Amino acid sequence: MRAAPSPEEIRRRNLAVLLRHVHRDGPVSRTVLAERMGVNRSTILALTADLAAAGLVSEELPGQTGKAGRPSLVVRPESDRVYVIALDVGADRLAAATVGLGGAILARTEKARTTGAFDPDEVRATLAAMTRALIARAAPGSVCVGAGVAFCGMVRQEDGVVRYGPNIGWAEVPFGADMTRELDLGVPVLVGNNANLGALAERERGVGAGLADLIYLHGDVGIGGGIIMGGELIGGEGGYGGEVGHMVVSPGGRACACGSRGCLEAEAGELALIEAAERTDPPGRAAVEAIVDAAARGDVTARDALHHVGDQLGSGVANLVNIFNPSMVVFGGVLREIYLASAAQVRSRVALDGLRAVRERVRLRTSALGGDSTLIGAAELAFAAVLTDPLQTLARNVHADS
Amino acid sequence: MRAAPSPEEIRRRNLAVLLRHVHRDGPVSRTVLAERMGVNRSTILALTADLAAAGLVSEELPGQTGKAGRPSLVVRPESDRVYVIALDVGADRLAAATVGLGGAILARTEKARTTGAFDPDEVRATLAAMTRALIARAAPGSVCVGAGVAFCGMVRQEDGVVRYGPNIGWAEVPFGADMTRELDLGVPVLVGNNANLGALAERERGVGAGLADLIYLHGDVGIGGGIIMGGELIGGEGGYGGEVGHMVVSPGGRACACGSRGCLEAEAGELALIEAAERTDPPGRAAVEAIVDAAARGDVTARDALHHVGDQLGSGVANLVNIFNPSMVVFGGVLREIYLASAAQVRSRVALDGLRAVRERVRLRTSALGGDSTLIGAAELAFAAVLTDPLQTLARNVHADS
Repeated sequence: MRAAPSPEEIRRRNLAVLLRHVHRDGPVSRTVLAERMGVNRSTILALTADLAAAGLVSEELPGQTGKAGRPSLVVRPESDRVYVIALDVGADRLAAATVGLGGAILARTEKARTTGAFDPDEVRATLAAMTRALIARAAPGSVCVGAGVAFCGMVRQEDGVVRYGPNIGWAEVPFGADMTRELDLGVPVLVGNNANLGALAERERGVGAGLADLIYLHGDVGIGGGIIMGGELIGGEGGYGGEVGHMVVSPGGRACACGSRGCLEAEAGELALIEAAERTDPPGRAAVEAIVDAAARGDVTARDALHHVGDQLGSGVANLVNIFNPSMVVFGGVLREIYLASAAQVRSRVALDGLRAVRERVRLRTSALGGDSTLIGAAELAFAAVLTDPLQTLARNVHADS
Repeated sequence: MRAAPSPEEIRRRNLAVLLRHVHRDGPVSRTVLAERMGVNRSTILALTADLAAAGLVSEELPGQTGKAGRPSLVVRPESDRVYVIALDVGADRLAAATVGLGGAILARTEKARTTGAFDPDEVRATLAAMTRALIARAAPGSVCVGAGVAFCGMVRQEDGVVRYGPNIGWAEVPFGADMTRELDLGVPVLVGNNANLGALAERERGVGAGLADLIYLHGDVGIGGGIIMGGELIGGEGGYGGEVGHMVVSPGGRACACGSRGCLEAEAGELALIEAAERTDPPGRAAVEAIVDAAARGDVTARDALHHVGDQLGSGVANLVNIFNPSMVVFGGVLREIYLASAAQVRSRVALDGLRAVRERVRLRTSALGGDSTLIGAAELAFAAVLTDPLQTLARNVHADS
C-alpha cells in the first residue's frame, strides 16, 4: 500500500493541474478554475498566488462581463516570460520557434532544404544557430524551461536516438544527446516523432480538440502518422507505431527510400506529386503550392497529378479507417494542401474501400495549426516538465540562466 | 470525492479478484493467492470459504511438494459445475461449446457451412438446437452463468446488433436480442467480433499470454483482426476497429464481398486459396487442410497457391507491423494452417516491406488454442459477469434454473 500523499505533494500536483488548465485553455477565471478542478476558491487563490510569485501566471480583471457583483479575476499564462524552444526536422525544412506558456508562437524561423542525405553535424549546427538567434530576441528576463524536437522518422523515446530517418539518410543518430550538448541550455533536448507530436498538438489545441480516436497524417517528402486511440498515442512495443507512410498502397509501385516499393509516402508524398506534375522543382512546401496554384489556374497536368496523388492518399486513408474506426483523420504538413486540392478523390476512395459502419462517421479535416502542428507538438514535449512540477522546474531553469 | 468503499464492497471486489486468478491460472495454492493479491492468508481463507460455499471453487491437498511443513491447500475452479455457453458464427461453420470455469471446453459441437447468405432465423434455430443438446449433456446440478457469441463481422457492443457481416450477407441483424429470446437461459447472450474475442483469448490463455501489444488475425472466408495495444483492445470511435481484412493489398484485385477489390481477405482468405489451387471444394477448414496436404505430398499447384496466398498475407502483415509495431502477430482460424504452409513467403514479405526497427522484434506465431480461440473468447465474454460479481451472478442463475 502506498501512503496517502502529503499536503505538500497535493499542493505540487494541484499547481501542475492549474497550470495545465491555463496553458491549454488560455486566460480563465478563478471561478471557472475552481469548478473545473473541483476545489474551493481559497485553494485556487493560494495556488494562483504561488504560480504568480514564480512568474508563471498573472492575474487581471476580466473585460465587461455584464454580470452583477465583483468579477472573478482572470488567470493567464505568462507567455512572454516563460517559453520553450521548439525545433522541427522535416525532410524538406528545418524550423525553429520560441513558444510561450499557453502555446503561442513568439518567434519563428525556417530554412527550406533540398532532400537527400542531411549531415547530422550540419543539421545540429544550423538548428543551434537558429536557436541562439531566437533566444537573443526573447524578452529580457524571460526563462527557457525546455526544448523539444519533432523529427521526421523513428525515434527512441527514452534517449532521443533517431533509429531511422529514411528520407534524410539517418540511422542510429544520438540526436537528443547531441542537441542537448550543442545547445547547452541547462535542459535536456527531447526528441519525438513529428507525426506523433502533430497528433498530440491537434488533439490538445487543434481541430481534434478533445477527441479520443484520432489519426494525424503529416506529409512532406515522407508521410508519417500519429494515431491516438482511446485517448492514448499508439506506440506499440518499441514506441515506433504509426509508420503509415510505409503501408504499401501500390504493390510494385514507386521505389521508396525505405527499400520497399509502392509505400504510401512514395505514392502520395512530395516526390510523387512533383514527378506526376512533370516538374523539376526541388521538393518542399513551395513546390506543392506551385502545383496547387497551377491546377487552380487550369493546368491540366497539375490537376491530374493532384487527382492521382489524392487517389493514392485515399487508398491509404481508407485502409486506416477500416483498421482503426477513427472519429477524425487530420491532414497536416503538405498533405493539408494536397488534401484540399484532391478532396473529391480522397473521399471517393474512402467511400469505395471503406466499410459503411466506419466510414459513415469519420470526419476528414485539415490541420487547424497550419503548417505548425509538429512544431507545436515539439513545444508541448518541451513544456511537459514545467507542467508536471511547475515551481521546481522553473527554479532549476532560473538558476541555470543566472 | 467518492466515499471510501464499504467492507462489503471490498469483500465483493476481492471475491471477484480471487475468482479471476483461479479462472485464468487454474489450481493455485492459498499461499500464492495471498502473495498475488497482496492480502493475508486469513482473508484468502474467508474468501475461499465463501466461493466454495457457492460452489464456484473447491479446495484440496496439493500433490507432493517436497517441502517440509503443512502444505497450503490448493484452490481450483469448479469447472464441471459452473459453465457458460460459447457460440461461434464463422463464415464457414457454426460451433457451440460448454466451457467450464477455468476455461476448459467441456463439450463441443460444430457444423460446417457452405458460404453464401445465411438465413438469420435458421442460424438462430441451429445454434439453439446445438445449445440445447449441450445443456442436456451438462453435469447434474451444474449452472450456466452466461452465454457469448463470436461473430464474423462488425458488432455493436452495447446491444449485440450485427452491423455488417459481408461474408454471410447480414446487415443490421439484432442477433444478441434474438439469441437471448431464443435460448431463454435467464442470461443475456452477448455478442462480439470474433477476431477481437480471439485476440483476448490468446492474450489471456494462449500464445500471447501477458503481452501488451498483440495482433490476432483470424481467417476463414474472411480475415478479421483483433488488435491489442497498450493492453487494450482497439475499438475506435464505434468499436468497429480491427477490420484489417478490408485493407487493400492488391488494388484492382479480386472482388471482395464488401464491394471493394483486392482486400486482404479477398486475396488471402479461403476463396482465394481454393481458386488458386484450381479446386472446387466448398470453402471451410477441410478445403484448406486438403490443399495443405496436397502441397505436402508434392502437388505443385497446391504449393504455388499457398505461396501466392502467403505472399499476399505477408503484405498485409508487413503493413500492420509498420503501423502498429506489435510484439507478436498470431495467426488463428485457417490462417494457422495457411501460415504454417507459407511461413517463408510471409516472412520474406515482412522482411522486404517491414521497417527494420519494427520487424526486428516482432514474433510471428500460430494460435495456441487451435481452431478455438474465437470460441474461447466468446466464453470469456460470457464469464465476465460472474468474474465481476461472483456470488450475485451465481445466485441469480441458480434461481433462474430452479
